[in-house]
Amino acid sequence: MLDHNVPGGKLNRGISVVDSLKHLKSGVELTKEDKFLACVLGWCIEWLQAYFLVLDDIMDNSITRRGQPCWYRVPKVGSIAINDGIVLRNHIFRLLRLHFRSKAYYLELNDLFNEVEYQTTCGQMLDLITTPAGEVDLSKYVIPTYLKIVQYKTAYYSFYLPVACALLMVGKSLDDYKPTKEILVLMGTYFQVQDDVLDCYGDPQFIGKIGTDIEDSKCSWLIVQALKRANKEQKQCLLDNYGKSDHECVAKVKAIYKELALQTVFLEYEKEVYDKLITEIESQEDHAVQTVLKAFLAKIYKRQK
Amino acid sequence: MLDHNVPGGKLNRGISVVDSLKHLKSGVELTKEDKFLACVLGWCIEWLQAYFLVLDDIMDNSITRRGQPCWYRVPKVGSIAINDGIVLRNHIFRLLRLHFRSKAYYLELNDLFNEVEYQTTCGQMLDLITTPAGEVDLSKYVIPTYLKIVQYKTAYYSFYLPVACALLMVGKSLDDYKPTKEILVLMGTYFQVQDDVLDCYGDPQFIGKIGTDIEDSKCSWLIVQALKRANKEQKQCLLDNYGKSDHECVAKVKAIYKELALQTVFLEYEKEVYDKLITEIESQEDHAVQTVLKAFLAKIYKRQK
Repeated sequence: MLDHNVPGGKLNRGISVVDSLKHLKSGVELTKEDKFLACVLGWCIEWLQAYFLVLDDIMDNSITRRGQPCWYRVPKVGSIAINDGIVLRNHIFRLLRLHFRSKAYYLELNDLFNEVEYQTTCGQMLDLITTPAGEVDLSKYVIPTYLKIVQYKTAYYSFYLPVACALLMVGKSLDDYKPTKEILVLMGTYFQVQDDVLDCYGDPQFIGKIGTDIEDSKCSWLIVQALKRANKEQKQCLLDNYGKSDHECVAKVKAIYKELALQTVFLEYEKEVYDKLITEIESQEDHAVQTVLKAFLAKIYKRQK
Repeated sequence: MLDHNVPGGKLNRGISVVDSLKHLKSGVELTKEDKFLACVLGWCIEWLQAYFLVLDDIMDNSITRRGQPCWYRVPKVGSIAINDGIVLRNHIFRLLRLHFRSKAYYLELNDLFNEVEYQTTCGQMLDLITTPAGEVDLSKYVIPTYLKIVQYKTAYYSFYLPVACALLMVGKSLDDYKPTKEILVLMGTYFQVQDDVLDCYGDPQFIGKIGTDIEDSKCSWLIVQALKRANKEQKQCLLDNYGKSDHECVAKVKAIYKELALQTVFLEYEKEVYDKLITEIESQEDHAVQTVLKAFLAKIYKRQK
């Protein structure tokens, strides 16, 4: 179960803990213990991700994940996958206890993982309510909802959590880093918008998959922007053709995206969010944190995959 | 979701926290704060139970729970129930944080709930592996497996957890109460054996349901004992008739139970376990803990429902 579900991803989240810690201890070589503990926390985030994916795939009735069948689709697994997800989840807190119980930040670390799990669960709830399988209602696809889903379902655990782990390791209190959290959530949102745009316009050879957000009725940044900008006719066309596996329907949706110049809208959004992020980052008091955030941003800005 | 899933049970586990605390503070009237905090912990255990039941019902493909449809069977819920289970679970740790963060025992309380959730998940895993839906293999129904499933899936959270909560509230360290834990696990096992026996021999008017363990191929104490004691012929009859909804098949299984005098076997087991529990309880150093354990035992000994 672990071999099927934990490896196979890009490990971005896990590696971010180690990278963040390096920046926070700027100049000073990490000790063997620091490296080890950062890796433990990195893996905890990867296990958290594995837990979310195992359960989300069941709820979304997904077929494949990371190039192999979703765990619940493996013969003899089925709904036992629910309990397996919980097993993955429980091991995070066993790992934390095993390696961090004597640390001054153990309590805050526990609270952090609990809080982020809760936020992600709320994001998943909002997503499930907004985009229920089989009965899509495009009138719910509006920007504030889109932003809330991305913030709660993805940004907290993917962007804030790795940095927060590193901050705790260097003895910081997370209460003092609320603006840092906001920046990371904004960065996470930008990352997801990129993901949505790449699904439609990315090079399949680069991104490693053929996007099907239009066919799957996904609440993507593109459809949300399109619905906001469309005239009555264009809107009707979107309603008629979004969420159909038919090649011509997909082409019609993409034609509207083109009429509305969504790629340009994205470039404008990208410039705006980048400028905002840079300004916010440079207003951070803690210089080491600025380095962490800038390194993060450099990794994702204008990414093609 | 909360209204559907949290109330409706007997609240034994929740009330046990308050009762245990009363015994541990023997003689001294509970303060308003003590009562309130014990109730919070009691509800945390009830929410934990609700979370387990919501997910277990999906995995067991169950139809009803506490006299109403299982949550996942309610229209428009379906597999969203998985996330709802996680929502229930996450609120436990939010409640703990909200009401106990300033307490000296907050860390141990967190660890306790994490540990007990993990044990229950392991019990559920063992149960799912031993009794997979649709392909029952009676050769797996042996006493050591039965005992492990009951201990992990039921006894820790139903019997140990409420008392452990009360012990933490009076400032005890759980490391000093390992024998108490063992006694409570044994009591939880006895409780589950009673449950299995009542399913077959209890008065439906008393227990509030008509037992169907035989029809459902349950890994019940009775079938485990029967398989251990049956001769070749009786064993074949059990294999042929266990797990069938047919009235005659059920009658044949019950006839074998009678031939093997399982009701007498149970009475012997009950006497033995009662004597053992009394001896163990009286060897407990902490007198208040003896009172807690004896009160617990008095509640369940020779119960008819």
